[in-house]
Amino acid sequence: MSRDAIEAAFEAGIKLGALYHQWVGTPISPSTAPFVEKAIEKAVSLQPFVEMIDVRIDVDQMIPNTFGYSELAGRMFDVEIVTRVGDATCRASLKLDDDYPMMRILECDDAS
Amino acid sequence: MSRDAIEAAFEAGIKLGALYHQWVGTPISPSTAPFVEKAIEKAVSLQPFVEMIDVRIDVDQMIPNTFGYSELAGRMFDVEIVTRVGDATCRASLKLDDDYPMMRILECDDAS
Amino acid sequence: MSRDAIEAAFEAGIKLGALYHQWVGTPISPSTAPFVEKAIEKAVSLQPFVEMIDVRIDVDQMIPNTFGYSELAGRMFDVEIVTRVGDATCRASLKLDDDYPMMRILECDDAS
Amino acid sequence: MSRDAIEAAFEAGIKLGALYHQWVGTPISPSTAPFVEKAIEKAVSLQPFVEMIDVRIDVDQMIPNTFGYSELAGRMFDVEIVTRVGDATCRASLKLDDDYPMMRILECDDAS
Repeated sequence: MSRDAIEAAFEAGIKLGALYHQWVGTPISPSTAPFVEKAIEKAVSLQPFVEMIDVRIDVDQMIPNTFGYSELAGRMFDVEIVTRVGDATCRASLKLDDDYPMMRILECDDAS
Repeated sequence: MSRDAIEAAFEAGIKLGALYHQWVGTPISPSTAPFVEKAIEKAVSLQPFVEMIDVRIDVDQMIPNTFGYSELAGRMFDVEIVTRVGDATCRASLKLDDDYPMMRILECDDAS
Repeated sequence: MSRDAIEAAFEAGIKLGALYHQWVGTPISPSTAPFVEKAIEKAVSLQPFVEMIDVRIDVDQMIPNTFGYSELAGRMFDVEIVTRVGDATCRASLKLDDDYPMMRILECDDAS
Repeated sequence: MSRDAIEAAFEAGIKLGALYHQWVGTPISPSTAPFVEKAIEKAVSLQPFVEMIDVRIDVDQMIPNTFGYSELAGRMFDVEIVTRVGDATCRASLKLDDDYPMMRILECDDAS
């Protein structure tokens, strides 16, 4: 892997770690999820080195509390991100896996 | 003040304290602010005792960093909320005042 | 209730809402809980109108993930706070109740 | 760079992004900073692949508000972390650089 590829992986990690801890705890319901997905995508897209970000919140993971809503939890996230540094790109995801909200590198490429 | 009025004030405080510390730090720019305002309003409206919530993010307070965006800071908030407990309502705000993002009760009423 | 009492209730709400959404999501375990409890108490004590704050994190609510730790969740909190405005004080709590992390006013007094 | 090295860089990014957005906004002062530093170090150390974490909060960056305290801001962080995946390690930092709280890879090695 090139230095650019490793930087792209680092940047993908930053963005996933950041969005998780920024947004976990947000009150949420199936009807408000699209607004939160959009706001997260807009916020992450502002950050450097982000090529693509797709955020889905899994409403099937929502267990309504006494008052009829949930809190955004790590296990609800289904996120894919692509970062670019120079000619290198890194595609990574945040997704529930074996009951843990796992962040993974899917693919790193260096076109140079 | 009635017990309901004091509960309504307590609930208004909870919602303002919560939204402040949930979203401060979010990457933001003038073009993404409306999406974040909407997401915050949707999230707060899910919580019990909330009658009205209006969130404005003051783009004039944004100082772009090297990468051209800002982070949502307390001083950018201009929020008004109305909570209701029984027949009592409380109207409160979060707004920059003397360089501090101040939370204030504007008015508490008990119609009973 | 006096105006001071209602302000004290408002301030208690602010602090509970704030600490909840600031700290939820923090990686935690039984051995690190005392450090997080202390840091929360120190942080909240800096804020205006706080007379007393006691933070306990219920380790029995922790369900270790694949990697052996948990995330601080609302249901783990057992917090009591006293706020003062003028001669009025408000004692409030955040505690699991009927499977919901409930914030409650325990007692509001105005000594004036 | 090996696959392990790129994974170690990804993990370092996750941890830095996570800690930044988890704790930014926390009320802080020079006297409480050591407690928050310790809580952050303890929390990050629970996460997988973390070999070392050192958190310093720069008290010189604190500008007290009307009430005499500050809020933890990105520019106050001086953090160094080492992650390990297999035989590869990655040393990275979060530190103010040209008025931006920059996250950087300092060194990635693969001993295999």
